[in-house]
Amino acid sequence: MKKGKTFIVSGPSGVGKSTVLQALLSKRDDLYFSVSATTRPAREGETDGVHYHFLDVETFQQWIAEDQFLEYAEYVGNFYGTPKRFVDEAMERGKDVILDIEIQGAIQIAAKRPETIRIFIAPPSWAELERRLSSRGTDSQEKIQKRLVRAKVEFQTAHTYDYFVINDSVENAVRELEAIMTAEHCRPQERMEIISGK
Amino acid sequence: MKKGKTFIVSGPSGVGKSTVLQALLSKRDDLYFSVSATTRPAREGETDGVHYHFLDVETFQQWIAEDQFLEYAEYVGNFYGTPKRFVDEAMERGKDVILDIEIQGAIQIAAKRPETIRIFIAPPSWAELERRLSSRGTDSQEKIQKRLVRAKVEFQTAHTYDYFVINDSVENAVRELEAIMTAEHCRPQERMEIISGK
Repeated sequence: MKKGKTFIVSGPSGVGKSTVLQALLSKRDDLYFSVSATTRPAREGETDGVHYHFLDVETFQQWIAEDQFLEYAEYVGNFYGTPKRFVDEAMERGKDVILDIEIQGAIQIAAKRPETIRIFIAPPSWAELERRLSSRGTDSQEKIQKRLVRAKVEFQTAHTYDYFVINDSVENAVRELEAIMTAEHCRPQERMEIISGK
Repeated sequence: MKKGKTFIVSGPSGVGKSTVLQALLSKRDDLYFSVSATTRPAREGETDGVHYHFLDVETFQQWIAEDQFLEYAEYVGNFYGTPKRFVDEAMERGKDVILDIEIQGAIQIAAKRPETIRIFIAPPSWAELERRLSSRGTDSQEKIQKRLVRAKVEFQTAHTYDYFVINDSVENAVRELEAIMTAEHCRPQERMEIISGK
């Protein structure tokens, strides 16, 4: 059976990544969306194994020691990580895996698994990103400017990504994501059984 | 304006490459299908500039001297080549260019222009390629076996191609070709205007 591939999707705050990924997942049942592990307590309405795999600190540390994470990080006192096991099980079942991960995590994974495809979701322009951040109405003007500066800094790293998807419209971004996934399954190493001459 | 890219499409005799390319071109008017130049005399029903650019030997030699070909070859006493000019004009107009070229020509072009994307159209299996060659009814059993051996030799080179499209059905092959073209336009270098921070 054809094995799945792993696709990392990153993008700055406000670019609309979650909306794009939700639209992609709602039309495709052959994808596995990776669920992160965390030591943060579950909030009201969050389900273990759906929103996060909720672990105690001891277990999380043990998983680190056992090299069970593709990447992990500490953020305001809590650990977050991507467990290898569910990703690998999904790929073995032939499913493509989507990892919604920020740039630092993507760099960790690229070092361990260079065959992972990295996709950066970019806004059509910085002005448009600022407009989207403002229209959410959740951040102060100061915080919006901080997010913009952070996004521009991240962009300096993002040119090492394999693909840039411009989120000018959700439909177009989903179309490009699907094209990238289809194209990556056309790589020669994916089709060795033909080349090897059966 | 967005510039076009060049895609080389190769494949063994009998794989159905022409049918696939015709189907692709009939649904897409933003593609330019490169017309080769040749010193072979025009046959009944062939139009200059449509089927070939028909050149006399002197002109063809001059174009070689002026480095006007992306690739060229001699075949049973006639020259065949891909003129640079029409390819470059089409890309400047934003059109993607399709070059239907065999492996030796593809190697010449890859050396000159490594950014060219190379796609190999492969049969689902060798048995299926043999069946397709037989069903054409044009070749003797001996010639079919020769074509099969040649296809297997070519395959040893084809693993250096960027993509393998399996022609299991015309619809699927066209879908994969379009996905590859879309994906290649999502490369970071194609989207520099965002990265550079306008």
